[in-house]
Amino acid sequence: MTTVRLIQYEDAGPDVRAVYDDIMATRGSDWVNNFWKALAVHPPTLRETWARVKAVMAPGALDAVTKEMLYVAVSAANNCAYCIHSHTAGARRAGMSDAMYGELLAVVGLANQTNALANAMQVPVDDRFWVS
Amino acid sequence: MTTVRLIQYEDAGPDVRAVYDDIMATRGSDWVNNFWKALAVHPPTLRETWARVKAVMAPGALDAVTKEMLYVAVSAANNCAYCIHSHTAGARRAGMSDAMYGELLAVVGLANQTNALANAMQVPVDDRFWVS
Amino acid sequence: MTTVRLIQYEDAGPDVRAVYDDIMATRGSDWVNNFWKALAVHPPTLRETWARVKAVMAPGALDAVTKEMLYVAVSAANNCAYCIHSHTAGARRAGMSDAMYGELLAVVGLANQTNALANAMQVPVDDRFWVS
Amino acid sequence: MTTVRLIQYEDAGPDVRAVYDDIMATRGSDWVNNFWKALAVHPPTLRETWARVKAVMAPGALDAVTKEMLYVAVSAANNCAYCIHSHTAGARRAGMSDAMYGELLAVVGLANQTNALANAMQVPVDDRFWVS
Amino acid sequence: MTTVRLIQYEDAGPDVRAVYDDIMATRGSDWVNNFWKALAVHPPTLRETWARVKAVMAPGALDAVTKEMLYVAVSAANNCAYCIHSHTAGARRAGMSDAMYGELLAVVGLANQTNALANAMQVPVDDRFWVS
Amino acid sequence: MTTVRLIQYEDAGPDVRAVYDDIMATRGSDWVNNFWKALAVHPPTLRETWARVKAVMAPGALDAVTKEMLYVAVSAANNCAYCIHSHTAGARRAGMSDAMYGELLAVVGLANQTNALANAMQVPVDDRFWVS
Repeated sequence: MTTVRLIQYEDAGPDVRAVYDDIMATRGSDWVNNFWKALAVHPPTLRETWARVKAVMAPGALDAVTKEMLYVAVSAANNCAYCIHSHTAGARRAGMSDAMYGELLAVVGLANQTNALANAMQVPVDDRFWVS
Repeated sequence: MTTVRLIQYEDAGPDVRAVYDDIMATRGSDWVNNFWKALAVHPPTLRETWARVKAVMAPGALDAVTKEMLYVAVSAANNCAYCIHSHTAGARRAGMSDAMYGELLAVVGLANQTNALANAMQVPVDDRFWVS
Repeated sequence: MTTVRLIQYEDAGPDVRAVYDDIMATRGSDWVNNFWKALAVHPPTLRETWARVKAVMAPGALDAVTKEMLYVAVSAANNCAYCIHSHTAGARRAGMSDAMYGELLAVVGLANQTNALANAMQVPVDDRFWVS
Repeated sequence: MTTVRLIQYEDAGPDVRAVYDDIMATRGSDWVNNFWKALAVHPPTLRETWARVKAVMAPGALDAVTKEMLYVAVSAANNCAYCIHSHTAGARRAGMSDAMYGELLAVVGLANQTNALANAMQVPVDDRFWVS
Repeated sequence: MTTVRLIQYEDAGPDVRAVYDDIMATRGSDWVNNFWKALAVHPPTLRETWARVKAVMAPGALDAVTKEMLYVAVSAANNCAYCIHSHTAGARRAGMSDAMYGELLAVVGLANQTNALANAMQVPVDDRFWVS
Repeated sequence: MTTVRLIQYEDAGPDVRAVYDDIMATRGSDWVNNFWKALAVHPPTLRETWARVKAVMAPGALDAVTKEMLYVAVSAANNCAYCIHSHTAGARRAGMSDAMYGELLAVVGLANQTNALANAMQVPVDDRFWVS
């Protein structure tokens, strides 16, 4: 029950297939997940979003598992079911152990709690935290 | 312009002072930030929230800088100005470099973008992502 | 799996039926969607919410398709599955083409991304943007 | 009180200046707003975010004022003060009248209200709204 | 730094003055708070929003202090600074004691924490909680 | 389709069973709901979250039904389906009538509406609302 029809590889035009091919090649995988098949409704957004995911999620100053865990944390705060599932799976593939996941959950729960408390009381930011 | 008066150390009762003392001892610091001075309006919540922050944010399966960066990511998604400032400062203290912060921002921006896209299209979760 | 029982036309009292009748007459339709059947649990809220939807969503300085697309954008940001589906359908009925929907998705994704970035860095508003 | 120092034109390196120059040229303007000066902390994110804003916000199947109003609607739902101010100003520049703004506010208020009601009751999506 | 000019009583037309007068009469007060002075930019939304606030917030099956506390809880979850301040003040006027406020904060913090945890793990709703 | 396997009583270790036993004893119930079976993936978070729920939700300056309604209001604002269902059921068990629930919905809808309006216009907080 999406708002668009998922576009399968065999029904896709050459520009969409090129993105699907690059997703599979980059991941060393033989399938494409539903997010991209939905986004294919608008090829420019498909192409640019994939380019950005590919660039941003590659290991750099932060390693892959840290990036995936950050993704999970944001997705939980925003309650994006699709993203929670896909990036929790991604974090596990990148090496997140059960113990790491347990601590991730604890931090996410705590952060949402204190975010609400600080917002509820409108606590002023201490001068010492300012950069400029 | 908080909703409560901030309780300074010299005006605090012994139960609140005990928490302030533990915060400073744990951090090797000589001051207490405003969040705790606001939360002191309700001593049980002050005491339990600090106990939880102390336990959850201590290094474990995840190191301190990863935990602080997760906190920043959640706080940005929730737009808690206080928490963004205090935990960005905390992440820097724990070793987050400019390059790490730049990548953190890139992941946070990307995750919020794709969260909105997946939600907007109500993309169904692929069977392969399911655990149970 | 709602939190309330949906109230069907044949089980509704006269005040609820009057709202259902006006919904169908206004839309030139022969059915009432689930949102109203759920809200019928509290007739005053049903009546006032429908009156407001009827008045606010009528074409005025903004046309119907623009209003429906704004509704979709807000509903995606809030991740309201019901509202995303009903107002994406409404926007299509009001004339939203596939190309318009693709651009709507692109703007919604981008706005959520830069919202998160501006919040994460707590960027100060430029003086030139102020009205008062 | 940002989390980063704003990078002024005269302090920027050539890659950042190139983006600032393109922002001003595209807009026919002689200044760069704070969002970009903050994002300059991470040049790749600056460059890619600007490229995306430039491409996505250009008139296409949707005109400029509709895109800016969609941006305002999302930014209000996410409570991004910076984005609300900059895109409300952008919408006015693109032709949003007071009457259009009044109706935009009415739709945004209504959508947030019914989003909360539909979520609170967990109303099931009607079969008729499904695409696939 | 609002996005609109606040409309003072002496500058308001008769339809706006009528709402301001009713606000003051209903509250037994001699001033109007900024929210209404901003909303006066769009008189129909001003009039209907005030009518709704007046009807919904009047004591009924729930008393005034419970309604104000619910308003604070929602406003904290949404991080609406204006609403947090105005309705925390409203709750105090309606009889919320320091002890009640402390417990309100504790519930709000806890709910945001467990909301994030349940969302992060995508916990399925138990059959026993279903109504229909 | 959770991200973790639910841990049933018969498969649980003694520390997890102790929490399950306390949940059932505290509630005078013979079953444990899914939230705790999911959280059991990380026993320290299970133990501390339950301890906090038990303490915070016990009647005090606020009675049980008020606390459960506040929980529902926050959960609706955050769109946590699990929490909405479990705490709406909890509020009903604690004495929430249909009339009370109808007014709760009306307040939640209204608060989300005016939160969005106040945020959209960035209304400045009146001096009279300030505490400090």
